[in-house]
Amino acid sequence: MPYGYNGKILRVDLTTGAMKTEEPGEIVYRTYLGGGGLASYYLLRELKPGIDPLSADNILIFASNVISGAPIAGMTRFTVAAKSPLTGAYGEAEAGGFWGPELKFAGFDAVIITGKAEKPSYLWINDGKAEIRSAEKIWGLETGPAQEMIREELREKRARVALIGPGGENLVRYACVVNELKHVNGRTGMGAVMGSKNLKAVAVRGTKKMEMHDPEKLREMSKNLTELISQHDPNKVLHKMGTSNLVVPLNNQGILPTHNFRTGFFAGAEKISGEQMVATILKGEESCYACSVRCKRAVEVSSGPYATSEKHKYGGPEYETLGSLGSLLCIDDLEAISKGNELCNRYTLDTISAGVAIGFAMECYEKGIITQADTEGIEFRFGNPEAMVKGIEWIALRRPGLGDLLADGVKIAAARIGKGSEKFSLHIKGQELPMHDPRGKVGLALSYAASPTGADHVRAPHDTAFQAPGSNMERIAPLGILEPIPARELGPRKARNFTYLQFIWSLYESLGVCNFVAGPVWALSLTRLVEVVQTITGWETSLWELMKVGERTVTMARIFNLREGFGRKDDTLPERLFEPLESGALQGVGIDHGEFEDLLTLYYEAMGWDPKDGVPTRGKLAELNLYWLDEFVKDRR
Amino acid sequence: MPYGYNGKILRVDLTTGAMKTEEPGEIVYRTYLGGGGLASYYLLRELKPGIDPLSADNILIFASNVISGAPIAGMTRFTVAAKSPLTGAYGEAEAGGFWGPELKFAGFDAVIITGKAEKPSYLWINDGKAEIRSAEKIWGLETGPAQEMIREELREKRARVALIGPGGENLVRYACVVNELKHVNGRTGMGAVMGSKNLKAVAVRGTKKMEMHDPEKLREMSKNLTELISQHDPNKVLHKMGTSNLVVPLNNQGILPTHNFRTGFFAGAEKISGEQMVATILKGEESCYACSVRCKRAVEVSSGPYATSEKHKYGGPEYETLGSLGSLLCIDDLEAISKGNELCNRYTLDTISAGVAIGFAMECYEKGIITQADTEGIEFRFGNPEAMVKGIEWIALRRPGLGDLLADGVKIAAARIGKGSEKFSLHIKGQELPMHDPRGKVGLALSYAASPTGADHVRAPHDTAFQAPGSNMERIAPLGILEPIPARELGPRKARNFTYLQFIWSLYESLGVCNFVAGPVWALSLTRLVEVVQTITGWETSLWELMKVGERTVTMARIFNLREGFGRKDDTLPERLFEPLESGALQGVGIDHGEFEDLLTLYYEAMGWDPKDGVPTRGKLAELNLYWLDEFVKDRR
Repeated sequence: MPYGYNGKILRVDLTTGAMKTEEPGEIVYRTYLGGGGLASYYLLRELKPGIDPLSADNILIFASNVISGAPIAGMTRFTVAAKSPLTGAYGEAEAGGFWGPELKFAGFDAVIITGKAEKPSYLWINDGKAEIRSAEKIWGLETGPAQEMIREELREKRARVALIGPGGENLVRYACVVNELKHVNGRTGMGAVMGSKNLKAVAVRGTKKMEMHDPEKLREMSKNLTELISQHDPNKVLHKMGTSNLVVPLNNQGILPTHNFRTGFFAGAEKISGEQMVATILKGEESCYACSVRCKRAVEVSSGPYATSEKHKYGGPEYETLGSLGSLLCIDDLEAISKGNELCNRYTLDTISAGVAIGFAMECYEKGIITQADTEGIEFRFGNPEAMVKGIEWIALRRPGLGDLLADGVKIAAARIGKGSEKFSLHIKGQELPMHDPRGKVGLALSYAASPTGADHVRAPHDTAFQAPGSNMERIAPLGILEPIPARELGPRKARNFTYLQFIWSLYESLGVCNFVAGPVWALSLTRLVEVVQTITGWETSLWELMKVGERTVTMARIFNLREGFGRKDDTLPERLFEPLESGALQGVGIDHGEFEDLLTLYYEAMGWDPKDGVPTRGKLAELNLYWLDEFVKDRR
Repeated sequence: MPYGYNGKILRVDLTTGAMKTEEPGEIVYRTYLGGGGLASYYLLRELKPGIDPLSADNILIFASNVISGAPIAGMTRFTVAAKSPLTGAYGEAEAGGFWGPELKFAGFDAVIITGKAEKPSYLWINDGKAEIRSAEKIWGLETGPAQEMIREELREKRARVALIGPGGENLVRYACVVNELKHVNGRTGMGAVMGSKNLKAVAVRGTKKMEMHDPEKLREMSKNLTELISQHDPNKVLHKMGTSNLVVPLNNQGILPTHNFRTGFFAGAEKISGEQMVATILKGEESCYACSVRCKRAVEVSSGPYATSEKHKYGGPEYETLGSLGSLLCIDDLEAISKGNELCNRYTLDTISAGVAIGFAMECYEKGIITQADTEGIEFRFGNPEAMVKGIEWIALRRPGLGDLLADGVKIAAARIGKGSEKFSLHIKGQELPMHDPRGKVGLALSYAASPTGADHVRAPHDTAFQAPGSNMERIAPLGILEPIPARELGPRKARNFTYLQFIWSLYESLGVCNFVAGPVWALSLTRLVEVVQTITGWETSLWELMKVGERTVTMARIFNLREGFGRKDDTLPERLFEPLESGALQGVGIDHGEFEDLLTLYYEAMGWDPKDGVPTRGKLAELNLYWLDEFVKDRR
């Protein structure tokens, strides 16, 4: 070993049942790290372009990384990646919880799954061994009972299970994957890919301790980080409210998505806020492996039409869900939203896409494109919680009619029903918009448009984090970003900031790092992140090397999409975001189309991509050590 | 102060005599650091394009940086920069010694000199104050007596004096600037710019201790670095032989420039080697401020035609000089070379350009283009030391005829005499080739061609440093370069390596870091360099931020040159390097023209420059925080 890390990859062919283990070698690990980086590497090498994402030809990758599993806060996330059935583009989603570290303890960094099982199956990975088992008895079950039955069958209560419910089985294009029933690989429909492969679950158990270069130093760093977390969040906002703390401030800023993005102000915001949740239905805080933040919610509604499942085992709504099943739909009933959240976790639906799909239906209903004849008599109007809860069930079960229609996502749905409904389908590249409005933070417009997975709010920190002098600026100073930029400024400075910041978040996705613990948002500074990688792997790495992994990964996803036929025309925003907000603090504010297009050009060029279609130049591929991918894009230049 | 460093710039207008001090502010320092970075920043802001470099319109900058002056080995170098009278392009040269730290002790980071003094003058900077003084009595003196007279006049024996001799006064286009009579800002004719401004010298004295963020940690790091220097050079090769250690190995590799680059093998190599120098004329080793390497030579020839000046006060020849005044001219007389070196330091001529100019004359003589009628009867043949020594004197004094002709550099000389002599003029952009042959290390072909200052061997570490697995690879691993690449491989991997490595060396030029102490060549690793900057300035910086300063600086120099009309056509090699070497280990080896051009294209693209003329894209300018320079290049796209 020239440097100091190696790990194992498990390969599973569901068609033949063949399995094998391989060691890609340290240079592959150091070049791609894990998560999104490692997954892109294998997908580009092995996935044929043009395949149907719901066919046996798709390749599904579960990937941890070189640092996850170490006992330190905020580094537990893992990636599920494949070609997305929602977008036809690169698909990827991360989740926290315990599954990622458990895979490491079981002796693997990643699992590459090809083919399709003849019958419902699940994968059981136990301390270096793997087995494909029948899932015929659990197929059709919701996630809670399915997980229970798997643990019983394996006689292993401590098995960590990443699995799908009926949403995934029914190939809802935005079905998610869930572990511990509440940690979700939410976006781009990875649950549908599992379903299409007849793969109900991947259960893992491992007892191996992770090998580290300097375990003692890591222990010290871990202790230190826990202290820093307390210091950086003295009011324990994330602990007390989780992400739900965002509802009220975003509403005050005029960018809480409401009425299907027609406005950023919701009169009922306080009723669905984190404060309200704490005062009413919150039963406790939950955590991921080794983390002291405990940002996850556990809620319980004990009675009434929206009573939740016993023992609040499906967690509680994040900010995104409070938006997508709440303000977006003008629903101010926190109990209904919590029920909707629970249903999504039981069925494995992405709450963002599900909410936006229902919002689309509600606006169509408002405009008379959909009528009570389509909704089994239910009033599908904005503000009606019953419509939302029913909608989720119909989608998950692909109930013929509206459920089946919405299960394909708003892009396909709008194309199918026509009549001007495209205008109400808020998506980019087919993926539904998250609950952050770029009209108040324009860097996000670029972030959404350029995201390889379609609309995605976790491609880079949002502009609002760095718009004023103060402590946050210090956190990104190691990137050379020394001056604050107003959240609504477009142009060269914004292009620069986004370009750099996306590398960091792309890196987080390859290292399983959580945005709430890592800088620039939180306690783990960029300098410390470099040290952590060094301490665990033994590599004398640097922020340069790690940023370049981030850049490499962004570029690989771009190439994946170029190969599938995507181009500049797809890097845009839904019409509505160019229009003015109808009310609230930013009433009248829209995004200027010309300025947006120029920002996109600057970004392409900053990335070393041509302005015409965002195709990386040969030299840029060389620079990123990606020249092997030139053959995939040379015809696009 | 949001971060922690500020410093002062002295402005001197020689035309009016006005002087003032200004503080550019911390963000300018952190963005440009010093040296080449800071100088480019000011030149681009203030120098008008198209001016005559030898007119009062040129701007001459002496720049130290944010770390120099700290008591730690290998960080003492300073930059002299201006528009080059040799190339008409960006001009810049670094020197070690004591002058740079002394400027810091005197309270300044840089001196910006504009205009032209009416009469010969020198500048005296003494503990925060500055004064323009008459140099009428010392004008015309060689550097030794001039320095002495200045120190006497100032009654300050410890004044550090950067000055010119007759070469600079006579506007030899490759006149250098010298401090302590032996530390030389050698290339691009900065001495001629001093001469053109009637500026004989800049004398500095300071007693202020440098302020540092963490002086105790710096002391510890300094001690540690000194130990590492011993460990990394257990045989003390650089201490015992200095750069002269290269003569024999390069000859063995077949790339010791000989016979005006017709071959890379010199039969007399051992006679002019470091080993020979140690065994005969070496009198001692000398050092720069705070450095334990002591790589500088002091030689003495006590008698004979080439007897050197008393007390070996002009130092001794570096490898470059052993090449340019030795093997290149087929001269195997070490005493003559030492004399030539001394003369160059007395007159302030760059030894590389002087040697190549003489080599040009010798080849013209060989071909009958120059005859004894032009050489006052001296046989100007290869191998004749008398021709070399006379040639240097004639050039420095611009003796009418051959001396005056060669004083303008080989490009202008060849254009003037014609008759096919262009083929013997070994230069790029007008600057003469250094003593490293790209035919044995092809990355250097790119390095030479792309260098903004014309042919330059210190733009990036040479390919030979990283061609085999082993310890050197570990030193550049923090850049993400993990695999060795053969020295003679062209193509994408070489483009990547050069692109990254040039950022590091560009950074060294902005931080005054010496290649012999810093990684990748020596004891100071990249990680430690980041720590040093952090310890001195208090900035939480990173290798990313510092590499980006390197990239920014390379790009600024590119823009300087584009603004002056340079383009892709100028980024090439002299014809001879495409031709095969005539003898030695690489006999028959040339550089493939097509492969070279493709490497150049890959490099441009890796830099975010268009392949047509190497013009940075708008997005790349934005990314580097250089969008303010767009106006200078937008007409070139």
